[in-house]
Amino acid sequence: MAEDSSCGLRSRKKQRTRAAIERAALELALERHNPDATVEEICERAGISRMTFFNYFPSKIAALTGESSAGFTIDDLVSLLEAHPERFYLDALVEFGQHVIIVGTDEEIASLRRRAMEALPELGFQERRLAGALKQAVWEAFNRFLSEHPERRVMPEAPVEDEASMAAHLAVALFKISLSRYVRTSNLPEISELRASVASFLAAPSAVSHDADGQDA
Amino acid sequence: MAEDSSCGLRSRKKQRTRAAIERAALELALERHNPDATVEEICERAGISRMTFFNYFPSKIAALTGESSAGFTIDDLVSLLEAHPERFYLDALVEFGQHVIIVGTDEEIASLRRRAMEALPELGFQERRLAGALKQAVWEAFNRFLSEHPERRVMPEAPVEDEASMAAHLAVALFKISLSRYVRTSNLPEISELRASVASFLAAPSAVSHDADGQDA
Repeated sequence: MAEDSSCGLRSRKKQRTRAAIERAALELALERHNPDATVEEICERAGISRMTFFNYFPSKIAALTGESSAGFTIDDLVSLLEAHPERFYLDALVEFGQHVIIVGTDEEIASLRRRAMEALPELGFQERRLAGALKQAVWEAFNRFLSEHPERRVMPEAPVEDEASMAAHLAVALFKISLSRYVRTSNLPEISELRASVASFLAAPSAVSHDADGQDA
Repeated sequence: MAEDSSCGLRSRKKQRTRAAIERAALELALERHNPDATVEEICERAGISRMTFFNYFPSKIAALTGESSAGFTIDDLVSLLEAHPERFYLDALVEFGQHVIIVGTDEEIASLRRRAMEALPELGFQERRLAGALKQAVWEAFNRFLSEHPERRVMPEAPVEDEASMAAHLAVALFKISLSRYVRTSNLPEISELRASVASFLAAPSAVSHDADGQDA
């Protein structure tokens, strides 16, 4: 899309302000070895007002975890799934999460965030107000996508709802495993290798059955 | 453990109060087809005070989703993993989640909650303040368990952190898939069958590679 220069300027300025807030929040957390800095302290370091802060992030934790209030709509996600007809649809979505959410557009912020999550693993488990909304959008996008494109299904014998729910919860798990690997090693796992290693982990033998006495579970 | 009768009485009374709060919250959500009843309305229907409510649940959403402020400690979870040396450790944890969290001790509440989640799927995606703490405890329990019991590992060639992170995120996914199946069918999937079907879903072919033009990802 063509952007006139004032729009481009505004969007770059927004990007800079957003990065300044994230940088301030992450630096304070790293300096103090805890995520307890207040929104006021983050604003002071970033040189912005409280009102500006809340235009970009709904909470301090959101600034630390990089969660914006923008989010993705169900339509965005369905378009993404439709855009890669030659691939397993799960891979397209997880790779999008790896590159857009984990790495993002600002390398310096991604690296600061990686170090903060390494030093403070609890950050990865913080309540994320919008994460629930995003997970619900992913689930609804899979439901719609699989209903409209039965040829893309991999469990055609199961109800659509079951495949959508499995895909949505596994997409979240693969994303989180990727994030944890990225925090530990600075590298993102390649999606089809990650998927294969998870499949082989889950295929581990259930070990000897001791239930030979006929008890029902 | 022996319980003297006053303790037994107190614990039954607590159980009844907790169930009354959950029943009131779930009935109101089902009657109105939305989760917007206030804590005051829930208290009125349950015949309790606001103070009592907050002794049992941190929020209205917690009463709807059945999340108590009790939680499980890392020690509890490690003991659970150690208690089943003959099984794949992942199965023990997911089954515990299925039976303790999804089904719980009160059949009537479990059935009301199932109906509420069927009518209002967004309940399954609500922010759960303590869910993050529980997930972190699961992750730390796997880390400790796998470090102390290397003979139980299924990916002995990978770093312990990688196996623990994979196990923790997959346990959450298997739990959520179970919940979604339970809501749709009133039945919990058997854990080793569920694990096998997820493994086969993930082993879906990645389809034809169109990247023959040498582009790097």
